Amino acid sequence: MTNKILVSGIRSTGELHLGNYYGAMMDLVNYQNEYDAYFFIADLHSLTTHPNNPDLRKNVLNVAGNYLAAGLDPDKCALYAQSSIAAEVSELAMYLGMMMPLGELLRCPTFKEKAKKHPDNVNYGLVGYPVLMAADILIHRGEFVPVGDDQMVHLEMARTIVRKFRQTYGLDLFPEPLGMTKNAVRIPSLTGNGKMSKSDAADTYISMTDPQDLIEKKVKKAFSDPERVYKHQPGHPTAEGCNIFHMHTYFTDEQTRAQLETQCLSAEIGCVQCKARLAESMKEIVNPFRERREKLTEQYILDVLTDGQKRAKESAQRTIAEVRKAVGIITV
Amino acid sequence: MTNKILVSGIRSTGELHLGNYYGAMMDLVNYQNEYDAYFFIADLHSLTTHPNNPDLRKNVLNVAGNYLAAGLDPDKCALYAQSSIAAEVSELAMYLGMMMPLGELLRCPTFKEKAKKHPDNVNYGLVGYPVLMAADILIHRGEFVPVGDDQMVHLEMARTIVRKFRQTYGLDLFPEPLGMTKNAVRIPSLTGNGKMSKSDAADTYISMTDPQDLIEKKVKKAFSDPERVYKHQPGHPTAEGCNIFHMHTYFTDEQTRAQLETQCLSAEIGCVQCKARLAESMKEIVNPFRERREKLTEQYILDVLTDGQKRAKESAQRTIAEVRKAVGIITV
Ligand code: SF4
Ligand code: SF4
Repeated sequence: MTNKILVSGIRSTGELHLGNYYGAMMDLVNYQNEYDAYFFIADLHSLTTHPNNPDLRKNVLNVAGNYLAAGLDPDKCALYAQSSIAAEVSELAMYLGMMMPLGELLRCPTFKEKAKKHPDNVNYGLVGYPVLMAADILIHRGEFVPVGDDQMVHLEMARTIVRKFRQTYGLDLFPEPLGMTKNAVRIPSLTGNGKMSKSDAADTYISMTDPQDLIEKKVKKAFSDPERVYKHQPGHPTAEGCNIFHMHTYFTDEQTRAQLETQCLSAEIGCVQCKARLAESMKEIVNPFRERREKLTEQYILDVLTDGQKRAKESAQRTIAEVRKAVGIITV
Repeated sequence: MTNKILVSGIRSTGELHLGNYYGAMMDLVNYQNEYDAYFFIADLHSLTTHPNNPDLRKNVLNVAGNYLAAGLDPDKCALYAQSSIAAEVSELAMYLGMMMPLGELLRCPTFKEKAKKHPDNVNYGLVGYPVLMAADILIHRGEFVPVGDDQMVHLEMARTIVRKFRQTYGLDLFPEPLGMTKNAVRIPSLTGNGKMSKSDAADTYISMTDPQDLIEKKVKKAFSDPERVYKHQPGHPTAEGCNIFHMHTYFTDEQTRAQLETQCLSAEIGCVQCKARLAESMKEIVNPFRERREKLTEQYILDVLTDGQKRAKESAQRTIAEVRKAVGIITV
């Protein structure tokens, strides 16, 4: 394989709405074409804050199914549960932990935040989150990592560990992984207020599982140009002027959009019609996704994860063998 | 196996002198007869303070050889390098770390001490030492652990983790391991000052590798009853009165000792003769040990460690399988 290695974690409980689909999910779908891609569902990470989660396995299968329906292709990437290579990842994390200054971990803003949020569960694993994340990446000698802003600091720690490892063992085993800013797409909320989020009320976002009529209903009630009160008035069909038009820029083809723009500016079209058109565009994304999702059997998803595990394990074991040699531990 | 399970760590760089032989080494030799015993050479632990040790493998083989020469019987115990089940131990440590309050680790006296000693290397692994130690024990569901005074606090943490695990997962998988105070034998230094230690000058202890004439020479110069200046004076043949007699109580048979006592009290015997007799007793321990040690080939030691690894791995994998089930991680 001559492609660059990219590693990305996927939260084991995922929001599944149009905003997320267009953001995180489509990013990964694109990466698989350009990189030697390892995608893991981060079930172990979720244990640092929720050690006892009876739905853990179900969540992993569900998230894997969603990403497959979104377009991850098991022939193009290794999709696996983080826990399915737990032995390798935690062994590497153990060695890396000996390279990671405790002070830096304690000063880490995300740790401080979590410690504040769960003051009764500030455990050893929680402060070690960045070490485990470094192991997730370095176990495949990852070169690129898509990261959100809050994870940049974790990636910086992984880079620190890589340098320390090189210094300690005089061995250039790991590349310093580079962060890639995630797709900046921020699909707005149907209210026009901030971005679409599942933590808001159900009628503020389009879920990827919403049936057709619900999508229509939600969009009909959505916030549009506040200055266009009557149909005979022209509207402001720009991303800033009208929330509906803003969404058209993501979901509706250019030609149709140009038409809507003209019709809105000349008051030929009403907002009700314009919204109905947006609902159409959304359904064109949601419906095929839902259909693909429904067709995926648990067995198929399990097979994909098993295959992903196999490939991830091969890569992980190659790395671990090199690390053991560097550390000089006995291999009997 | 119906015996109780005992787990004990062995430092990967060991002092090898009569004091240590009579203390730590004989303890383990005795345990193997009464327990289902797992003895591991703690090479991973040594990495927390010395990450780059080119002698690591050699040290492990050497220590294993010493314990075999001292009487560990591969048919009676599993002797293995901690690193040879690194995957299992570190995976368990990862789960256990999520049960271990960080505050307790930071307050631990041994951590504070090490942090003071190596201020430029206070790493994540160092503060997690007790978590790794808990994993070493719990990976075999150990019930008994021989501990020195300084490790009692670590064992207490292992017990905390066991309770937390039971609480979190409602599963009685691990017994709370009980500490066994190590054999309190403290062989005195040849100077009569404190106990025998390899950190003191070479003529203050008898090394298990000392040749015969060196033993004689060292004992001849050793400190005896300070109040017996002339041979015609009676001495004080008690553990408190004479350092030489104190050592006779460990190394010389009762009958001979009674004789020496009488002869010393009646000034029939001089200290030179009495010391020569002590050197004899010591040689009776050191010589056979040295001979056994010299006969052990590296290949034999490796074979023993390989067999020990196999047995430790079987036990470890049984435990890990149960833990994974409890935590609820996907097993694809
Ligand atoms: S017609 Fe469409 S673009 Fe124009 S104001 Fe109404 S919703 Fe916005
Ligand atoms: S004869 Fe032996 S026991 Fe008596 S004082 Fe001398 S060394 Fe001590």
